Amino acid sequence: MRKELLDDIGEKELINRLGKFMPKNQTSDDCAFIKTTNENLLVNSDCLVENIHFSDLTICPKDLGWKAVVSNISDLLSSGSKETIGITISLILPAKTEWVWVEELYKGINKALKKYGGIILGGDCSKGNQKTISITALGIQGELKLRRNACSPGEIILTTGIHGLSKLGFMVQNKINFNNNISLSKRLIRKSIAHFCRPQVYPNFLTNIIKTRSDSKITKIGCTDSSDGLLQAVQDLAFASNCKAIMNYEKIPKDKDWPEGDKWDEYYFFGGEDYELVFSLPKKWAKKLSRLDQNVTEIGFFIKGEPSIEFKDNKKNKLLNNTPFKHF
Amino acid sequence: MRKELLDDIGEKELINRLGKFMPKNQTSDDCAFIKTTNENLLVNSDCLVENIHFSDLTICPKDLGWKAVVSNISDLLSSGSKETIGITISLILPAKTEWVWVEELYKGINKALKKYGGIILGGDCSKGNQKTISITALGIQGELKLRRNACSPGEIILTTGIHGLSKLGFMVQNKINFNNNISLSKRLIRKSIAHFCRPQVYPNFLTNIIKTRSDSKITKIGCTDSSDGLLQAVQDLAFASNCKAIMNYEKIPKDKDWPEGDKWDEYYFFGGEDYELVFSLPKKWAKKLSRLDQNVTEIGFFIKGEPSIEFKDNKKNKLLNNTPFKHF
Repeated sequence: MRKELLDDIGEKELINRLGKFMPKNQTSDDCAFIKTTNENLLVNSDCLVENIHFSDLTICPKDLGWKAVVSNISDLLSSGSKETIGITISLILPAKTEWVWVEELYKGINKALKKYGGIILGGDCSKGNQKTISITALGIQGELKLRRNACSPGEIILTTGIHGLSKLGFMVQNKINFNNNISLSKRLIRKSIAHFCRPQVYPNFLTNIIKTRSDSKITKIGCTDSSDGLLQAVQDLAFASNCKAIMNYEKIPKDKDWPEGDKWDEYYFFGGEDYELVFSLPKKWAKKLSRLDQNVTEIGFFIKGEPSIEFKDNKKNKLLNNTPFKHF
Repeated sequence: MRKELLDDIGEKELINRLGKFMPKNQTSDDCAFIKTTNENLLVNSDCLVENIHFSDLTICPKDLGWKAVVSNISDLLSSGSKETIGITISLILPAKTEWVWVEELYKGINKALKKYGGIILGGDCSKGNQKTISITALGIQGELKLRRNACSPGEIILTTGIHGLSKLGFMVQNKINFNNNISLSKRLIRKSIAHFCRPQVYPNFLTNIIKTRSDSKITKIGCTDSSDGLLQAVQDLAFASNCKAIMNYEKIPKDKDWPEGDKWDEYYFFGGEDYELVFSLPKKWAKKLSRLDQNVTEIGFFIKGEPSIEFKDNKKNKLLNNTPFKHF
């Protein structure tokens, strides 16, 4: 049976079908209306382009929809969002795209919104020669502002979760050959694919930080997410906060089956798309939080100095010569 | 001299340069922070794709930036926005794009924001094989809600400005040949190109409507913009409000040099991208407003009936057989 293409459906019917994925009161107007209380907002935009950020070979449309939402919510959380209001979606699709692809994408989008909160507020759709998903997410600023420029010398650097898994999942999906001497455990492979295709975020992150705060006068802490890799995140914090990061390689939380070696360190530190939160806290607060939250690990500290990163173990500094993923 | 391409600049430098077009306090974080008072918001997304919505042949990057902002602000105004907060920009560009193209685009964006209010809140940028500009605009809902579904039988249909000019400008820019018997005035050609390349909106529209309202209990009126053409706008109002539109062809405001004939009626009613406001008001209110605001003209009225459009002059109903611009 011939698959149904967007070309066959026509624009009116496409808009009609997409409308079914939206809450009823959000359809058929020029703008979405957002009722606000007296709270400040956070807004973030992210675009995903076919063959740059995704391809049909590496991720199915449902997972892609999930991941597109999660990458935006991750940015909201890393700024201290306490609630996701919703997202707008600008979709560009070739006319030969199958309707079922779009349907699956929206199922994934709504699955992520159902899990992490928020609705589809609206969007736009156009023909184009390359699939593109641009999402703008709106959240409500919680009582603690998380900002890149709020780290201070003396503070502990922490991270949620484990890095590198998404990169490994990407390579497995792309059937990239590893060094023959390496045999990866099936568990690690499964876990990595899951991290790459269906990344998770930490909706309780802000609550736990606030719960362990002893001084309620502190309303701002340093934070970003590791969507561009762990070292890029630490570097962004260091530059925005004008201090120097000392990383403790020994403390880096790795998966128990993660192989050793320079190449694997590179995947770990530069992989990206892990959507972990990288942040800094005063010593006592850091201790309290890492005791409360099993997902949080101390990985270094900030000192006064030129914005830069150094490893405590000098031998690891060669790692810093690697360059992160670039779009241009 | 070889032009500077994005490929030569690199991602870091590109982000750095784009940051210079943003207010200082909006740069280098995962999200933009929006301070709100206790007012409700409006949000709208629109994408422009090269060779679908624009091309280097028809519009220069500075005008394109202007137009991208204006098309979003038009949607905000048509929902009753009293102030534009700002926009996020997701930009997809081929690596061979010249930097000067991007610079001009942003100059146009900021020129429109300076005129109509709002700032660049943030955005994203990625490589891709087709230039794409996705903008999400945020505005503050004014005291009068303008909605597609708020028209009522008995109300007068009104429009700002003149339609068809943008379509004519588009055709002139594309060097499309007109019927040889038609000679267009130079003034009309100049005006049409200006409408196509640098469309204007009506920031005082909401103020004037409120000024002429006699019953402050009315908090909702029917409105949309004519970005997809005048008849599409009237049809959207009729369907959303479940009533029938009777259009008065004689009253349609045309440019004094606009040629007569079926083809020119088609350009007028289906052209699109005019960003005029099409709305309905009770009779007295409509009279008061069109006396106060020279840009406003009565063009018909709504009656009870199946959602549809009819011309008062039966001979004009053949116009309705035309179909509007489609993306798929």
